[in-house]
Amino acid sequence: MSIPDALAALSSLLGDRLVRAGSDLDLHGRSETHFPLTPPDAVAYPRSTEEVQALVRICAEQGCPVIGWGAGTSLEGHGLAVQGGVVVDFRDMNRVLEVRHADMDCAVQPGITREELNTELRATGLFFPVDPGANASLGGMAMTRASGTTAVRYGTMRDNVLGLEVVLADGRVIRTGTRARKSAAGYDLTGLMVGSEGTLGLVTELTLRLHGQPEAVSAAVCGFDRIEQAVAAVIDTIQMGLPMARIEFLDAATVEAVNAYAGMSLAPRPYLLVEFHGSEAGVAEQAEAFGEIIADHGAIGYDWATRPEDRKALWTMRHNAYYAMLAWRPGTRGVVTDICVPISRLAEAVEATTADIARSGIPGPILGHVGDGNFHAVLLVDPENAEEMKIAQGLSHRMAERALDLGGTCTGEHGVGLGKMPYMAREHGDGWDVMGQIKQALDPQNLMNPGKLVPPRS
Amino acid sequence: MSIPDALAALSSLLGDRLVRAGSDLDLHGRSETHFPLTPPDAVAYPRSTEEVQALVRICAEQGCPVIGWGAGTSLEGHGLAVQGGVVVDFRDMNRVLEVRHADMDCAVQPGITREELNTELRATGLFFPVDPGANASLGGMAMTRASGTTAVRYGTMRDNVLGLEVVLADGRVIRTGTRARKSAAGYDLTGLMVGSEGTLGLVTELTLRLHGQPEAVSAAVCGFDRIEQAVAAVIDTIQMGLPMARIEFLDAATVEAVNAYAGMSLAPRPYLLVEFHGSEAGVAEQAEAFGEIIADHGAIGYDWATRPEDRKALWTMRHNAYYAMLAWRPGTRGVVTDICVPISRLAEAVEATTADIARSGIPGPILGHVGDGNFHAVLLVDPENAEEMKIAQGLSHRMAERALDLGGTCTGEHGVGLGKMPYMAREHGDGWDVMGQIKQALDPQNLMNPGKLVPPRS
Repeated sequence: MSIPDALAALSSLLGDRLVRAGSDLDLHGRSETHFPLTPPDAVAYPRSTEEVQALVRICAEQGCPVIGWGAGTSLEGHGLAVQGGVVVDFRDMNRVLEVRHADMDCAVQPGITREELNTELRATGLFFPVDPGANASLGGMAMTRASGTTAVRYGTMRDNVLGLEVVLADGRVIRTGTRARKSAAGYDLTGLMVGSEGTLGLVTELTLRLHGQPEAVSAAVCGFDRIEQAVAAVIDTIQMGLPMARIEFLDAATVEAVNAYAGMSLAPRPYLLVEFHGSEAGVAEQAEAFGEIIADHGAIGYDWATRPEDRKALWTMRHNAYYAMLAWRPGTRGVVTDICVPISRLAEAVEATTADIARSGIPGPILGHVGDGNFHAVLLVDPENAEEMKIAQGLSHRMAERALDLGGTCTGEHGVGLGKMPYMAREHGDGWDVMGQIKQALDPQNLMNPGKLVPPRS
Repeated sequence: MSIPDALAALSSLLGDRLVRAGSDLDLHGRSETHFPLTPPDAVAYPRSTEEVQALVRICAEQGCPVIGWGAGTSLEGHGLAVQGGVVVDFRDMNRVLEVRHADMDCAVQPGITREELNTELRATGLFFPVDPGANASLGGMAMTRASGTTAVRYGTMRDNVLGLEVVLADGRVIRTGTRARKSAAGYDLTGLMVGSEGTLGLVTELTLRLHGQPEAVSAAVCGFDRIEQAVAAVIDTIQMGLPMARIEFLDAATVEAVNAYAGMSLAPRPYLLVEFHGSEAGVAEQAEAFGEIIADHGAIGYDWATRPEDRKALWTMRHNAYYAMLAWRPGTRGVVTDICVPISRLAEAVEATTADIARSGIPGPILGHVGDGNFHAVLLVDPENAEEMKIAQGLSHRMAERALDLGGTCTGEHGVGLGKMPYMAREHGDGWDVMGQIKQALDPQNLMNPGKLVPPRS
């Protein structure tokens, strides 16, 4: 019983779709952020649920860790094989299995990315709204409970995954949820699996809720002199119940970075980027109401992108903000923070964070999904510079602690992975042990993405 | 180690707030529906989380079952002490602890009912939208994952419980969730607890999401010649993405019953009752779009209740439908079914059910939250008449099987309780065993509402 024995058996199962050497291991040992290279022992490319099941059974017999992999866009090192083992890359399980137009749902394999899915849906009048920015895989998005720019209107993956097919640690295959829109039939296993980061099993199929493409869409950008004004405008907007489709905050440093990267020329000050979805009349009414709110808070300009290509440029700019920041300070990596606080504490959280970053000397643009109370500081550091890394980690640590002080969470949408383990005990108290008990019950050998999410076994 | 020992210790803890004899036991042994009288050994009335914790610790030591009790409005016998033990009635834990206007949430104790909560919220401009009809307790609603008339717009308890305080089977107290609107920090324990029917612990506090009272509300009723027309209109409405606040179906038999009970004089045919929430202009736009849809499906009349008192009369009629039915056939009890199917299969499900009921000779009015694909037949039987009960149970059984055949669920909103246990294995497959493993991990002695939801222990 060993990892080498598992690899031998997996080679028989998968042939050259089990890769045991070379650059592929490094590729699956990297993260988008600052975590050190951690190559797995092998990478597997299964093509069916049956193959995943056979793979998991072999690993269970041989005591070999199993780690799922989608598009590799996680920001917290979720896919890193910190205890060795096999990374299961869902590259070859990336199809749309069925679109059920009448029910406004679809069944997909885990490896499909959100952009691929929406391209396939384009002609149907439907779309999948969850948009974390990166072109992540749907399996990965479910496992990290991803959200992003549209969650304020359409919810997170928690709200948009209707059901899952999961291969459990012992090789059983379960289907959670039904195709009905709601159910009161027992524990919500779909909800338990969404956000479980591969620690309870591997997802091999997802049933996703789709939404009608809005009749009218309109986007706008408005600037403010001070961060507090922008945040106060967001708070008023949410409390007024305006059904914003997106409401995003960028600080002046973020704007400088995206200007350089995207060839824009926004004046470097804090901005809100917003989008309205609805009927023509509804969108006009929302836009007017929002215009009144921001005017009350001293907005500078309220510029509209009504043509689809202008809207696309706006959101491409937002989506590329992370890469823009890295390009803005060449040679750096990002320590990406991800706190989420009650809306009433948002101004306080952003202000304290801004002041803390300013004192540190590290560049740290701030941006976020402020309609949810969720924002990120991207701390740009040279990963080889121990002093800078230490300063960044101190800032990141104080942000997480501040979020907990304010009744919030250490991670709004990126997940626990490796980076947020230190805060789980404080955020959940005995609830963290409850998570460990659930893990122990369903994965007693601790083979599914070990070292993540639950308390270390003593 | 015994139930009598537990009761002795609980008497010392609670004094006369532990009731061990008399009518109180019967009152807590009854259900709203057809389940036989099942009095517990005692009823406890705790006043604080600390008392609940002490109570649970005593019961854990003595091996005494513990069953939570809210308003007693469950339709599936959730609160019945089928293995004896103590029913914990949250009558004295019914306060609103805090309303956080800026965050649009509140903290409440489990015993408060939804009407009491909304009365307390009236002056705030906020409301709690989940409305199962009965004036249920919020604790009970969370534990059964209740939904009701407004779920099509505002979601179910799954969507509106942000966090919980739970006393676990071993007496540990955990707080799930944070006050932030979203989190990716580990397993969704709030979601696991919502719908767990008291089998994992007792809820002692809930953090609930509130919504802004809509600027404009308007309600309407429209009739149809045939059920299929009404259902087809619902399907089109949902697919058009109209943001209905409520869309309810009543069949002709339901209308006859409510006419008699509420002194109404609706012509006995199938109806849709709808409500729109939004701005003045938004509501008008929705109402017009809905009017066009129903006209396409041959609607007869489209009558508006614009005055608050008329709207109230309309929804009171809907909410009292169950009692109206019981009064319509005096001496009967209801076997209440609760299936939920994909919207695309709704017409088929309603038609097959209607035909089956018509053949049976049992009165069985149908009504439901058709925007979710969820509907109920209320089978009116004399519970002393074994033949009628058998026919009703056959109908109920075929409805549940039909829902599963159509990709739906055996319970859309009432929960498993005692009535839906026979369908859990088919609905969930190995997933039901996974529920059993979670229960075993968190309640190894099987003391929290034993006999409900999970597979019986062998």
